[in-house]
Amino acid sequence: MPTLILLRHGQSQWNLEDRFTGWVDVDLTAEGEAQAIKGGVLIKAAGLAIDRCFTSVLTRAIRTSWLALAAAGQSFVPEVKDWRLNERHYGGLTGLNKTDTAARYGADQVKIWRRSYDIPPPPLTPGGEFDFDGDRRYAGAVLPDTESLASTLARVQPYWEAKIAPRLAASETLLVAAHGNSLRAIVKLLFGLNGEAIVGVEIPTGNPLLIDLDAALRPTAARYLDATRAQPLPPIAS
Amino acid sequence: MPTLILLRHGQSQWNLEDRFTGWVDVDLTAEGEAQAIKGGVLIKAAGLAIDRCFTSVLTRAIRTSWLALAAAGQSFVPEVKDWRLNERHYGGLTGLNKTDTAARYGADQVKIWRRSYDIPPPPLTPGGEFDFDGDRRYAGAVLPDTESLASTLARVQPYWEAKIAPRLAASETLLVAAHGNSLRAIVKLLFGLNGEAIVGVEIPTGNPLLIDLDAALRPTAARYLDATRAQPLPPIAS
Repeated sequence: MPTLILLRHGQSQWNLEDRFTGWVDVDLTAEGEAQAIKGGVLIKAAGLAIDRCFTSVLTRAIRTSWLALAAAGQSFVPEVKDWRLNERHYGGLTGLNKTDTAARYGADQVKIWRRSYDIPPPPLTPGGEFDFDGDRRYAGAVLPDTESLASTLARVQPYWEAKIAPRLAASETLLVAAHGNSLRAIVKLLFGLNGEAIVGVEIPTGNPLLIDLDAALRPTAARYLDATRAQPLPPIAS
Repeated sequence: MPTLILLRHGQSQWNLEDRFTGWVDVDLTAEGEAQAIKGGVLIKAAGLAIDRCFTSVLTRAIRTSWLALAAAGQSFVPEVKDWRLNERHYGGLTGLNKTDTAARYGADQVKIWRRSYDIPPPPLTPGGEFDFDGDRRYAGAVLPDTESLASTLARVQPYWEAKIAPRLAASETLLVAAHGNSLRAIVKLLFGLNGEAIVGVEIPTGNPLLIDLDAALRPTAARYLDATRAQPLPPIAS
């Protein structure tokens, strides 16, 4: 049966500095690397044989997939990288320290941007430091200039349906190593959650979330491989 | 114009122990990792923008590609892994210490197996420790049980023609992170060498070999990025 392993990248340098990262290509810290390796060790201990790995085009997710695959003894697994699995684009908040953002916009407004389902932050400044239009990894793509979780899902979903779901339908075991919000988008799709429910779902870093699916790709079971660092999961429809 | 970067993986644990490795999935040593990172630093310093990376299904080559891409700041580059870029299969010599092999078969015979173009070692023992038939990374493939450099080239060449050459013909810059003998096979193809000439070509580990090609994929220039550790290169046809 189809099996999906969702793995959120570990700590990055900007997580550490509490800055809005989004699409900025910040690397893992040493702790983030250790989390990815631990994720791979757990995958190996669970006896999971991965058929294919999907990740974003951001270094922190890619290196998480590499470190996890190597630790699982499965570095030979085919890998696909796509920007549609990127983190939510934080628009004009990109690069700002979260405390400074609260001072500028007010804590309530920042909470709305972070915790609402469909309200995006202000767009990024075109041509500024965090304008990704000239970055060759996005050549040919029409890029957002800010995203809510809803608009993140709007670009994850077509990719999911075109590239990932068909592999699951062929009963593959997939690793998706990505980001808090692109993984939330996938969880929303799979569990049929509404916008209010999904913003309450927190996916811990570096802790593989194993989801068993039926032939129609509905979850039949879900658990974190490190049970000591689990967060509540959406209910499984019976 | 098309650009090809050939990168031989760095030191593995069995290189260190002087054992015939072939298809055994031995990992890099810490020194091998450092060599791969240095290769990536040289690629970055040369201003090379890689469009695509090809590697084998053996961990030491895959991790060389990962470490080099990350050090070059290009971890987002699409990657393809294929067994046809594997090291030469050493058949019945696999796993043997080179000194022990010489004691068993005679130094002259071992030199013939190592240095001839088309004489393979004895085949591996079916069902033994180094029979790769049950390894899922080779599912569906008809595997050799020993290889000469000539038979290594016989499986590299169709892959080269089907998957790699078309990308070069589209003017891409490619990184091929692989093994001493699969890279020799590519050098033989590109430079039109005979069997005697190619066995004399030594490709140093962890030192990116940059080959500029014309539209017909004939080399127009070739150089090692670390000139202090270069080996003689085949002549460029004028």
